Amino acid sequence: MSKAGLVLLDCWVSPFCMRVKIALNEKGLQYEARPEDLFGGKSDLLLNSNPIYKKVPVFLHDGKPLCESSIIVAYIDETWSSPPLLPSCSYARAQARFWADYIDKKVVFDACGNIWRSKGEVPVEAKTEFIEILKQLEGALGDKEYFNGDTFGFVDIVAIPLTCWFFALEKIGGFSVAAECPKFSSWMKRCLQRESVAKVMPDPEKVYEFVLMFRKMQGID
Amino acid sequence: MSKAGLVLLDCWVSPFCMRVKIALNEKGLQYEARPEDLFGGKSDLLLNSNPIYKKVPVFLHDGKPLCESSIIVAYIDETWSSPPLLPSCSYARAQARFWADYIDKKVVFDACGNIWRSKGEVPVEAKTEFIEILKQLEGALGDKEYFNGDTFGFVDIVAIPLTCWFFALEKIGGFSVAAECPKFSSWMKRCLQRESVAKVMPDPEKVYEFVLMFRKMQGID
Repeated sequence: MSKAGLVLLDCWVSPFCMRVKIALNEKGLQYEARPEDLFGGKSDLLLNSNPIYKKVPVFLHDGKPLCESSIIVAYIDETWSSPPLLPSCSYARAQARFWADYIDKKVVFDACGNIWRSKGEVPVEAKTEFIEILKQLEGALGDKEYFNGDTFGFVDIVAIPLTCWFFALEKIGGFSVAAECPKFSSWMKRCLQRESVAKVMPDPEKVYEFVLMFRKMQGID
Repeated sequence: MSKAGLVLLDCWVSPFCMRVKIALNEKGLQYEARPEDLFGGKSDLLLNSNPIYKKVPVFLHDGKPLCESSIIVAYIDETWSSPPLLPSCSYARAQARFWADYIDKKVVFDACGNIWRSKGEVPVEAKTEFIEILKQLEGALGDKEYFNGDTFGFVDIVAIPLTCWFFALEKIGGFSVAAECPKFSSWMKRCLQRESVAKVMPDPEKVYEFVLMFRKMQGID
């Protein structure tokens, strides 16, 4: 597939953009990532392609825009079938969608946000909630290599990008994911060994610097 | 399909349960709806089948539980293929998922909740936001009969059950959806003429009584 037809409106620190990039890498597709300057003003292409939310990622396939990262990943899976990211059995597919949705509802907004946006010391409840959510995910993972079993897929792609923010959360919150959730931590390491993931995920130290800078911009620190 | 294998843990006033019932009706499937007593204590079957959220709807297919209404509707569509609820083209499917997700994010929580949960007079901003969200949906509907074109489908099923709460919202908020959003209102009437929808949707007056009772229980009135 030539680069011309696949364009991603991108931001290096966004886990949602990373999801799309990992899915494209898994499918072996070449694409053009166009960085958006989120502080200096969004491009007209972004504003016109995502008039409802006006945010990245936007994926353009032959000029046709798609928005919302999980929906884009599902689209990529349905458009380029090999290797499959969602299971072939409809019940397993529903379960994968359930956990992807859980991650979006719980990890992204409630859990991570309550830690990195906290003023002063992070409340114990916020840390406890975060760990409890990871433990639910550990339960869904069970003794499997990946969420769907032996093969890396949809739920892994939805979840793994969020973990590049964990170093920042651990520094701000004063806790250790590896100590609290060893199984989840092993899964993280396994995913990070994949080339499709490794070449997309930013250095956690740089994410931490970004979070500190962003906290200052927002008047939190 | 015999009734035995398809069980819905149900609540008459829940738009999320209505989604599942409409999807099953559209597919011509017989099912057993088991009402849950949400105030008197949830059944063990509900608690065991949906340990994460502990809420209806839960759909049991030959005893295997599925949770989250939009995910259940997609499962029903993938398991019983005729008539299809999601479009066959992957781009149109992604757009349908985008609007279903928008409805869940915006209409359900932000817009409806801000009106019916409001203490005292409903703020003008809450009403304006609600109408603006419906106008976005009118934009998505365009001049089509249904969200996907000529045939009733996934987005219609996700959206229409919420409208049985509109009478209550109009009474509490002092506004008229028909006056503000005539196209959306015509779409509502069109959907309500379908047997699959009409036999599932409760009387809006009864929903209003339920909302008033619930507001009292919550100490709002």
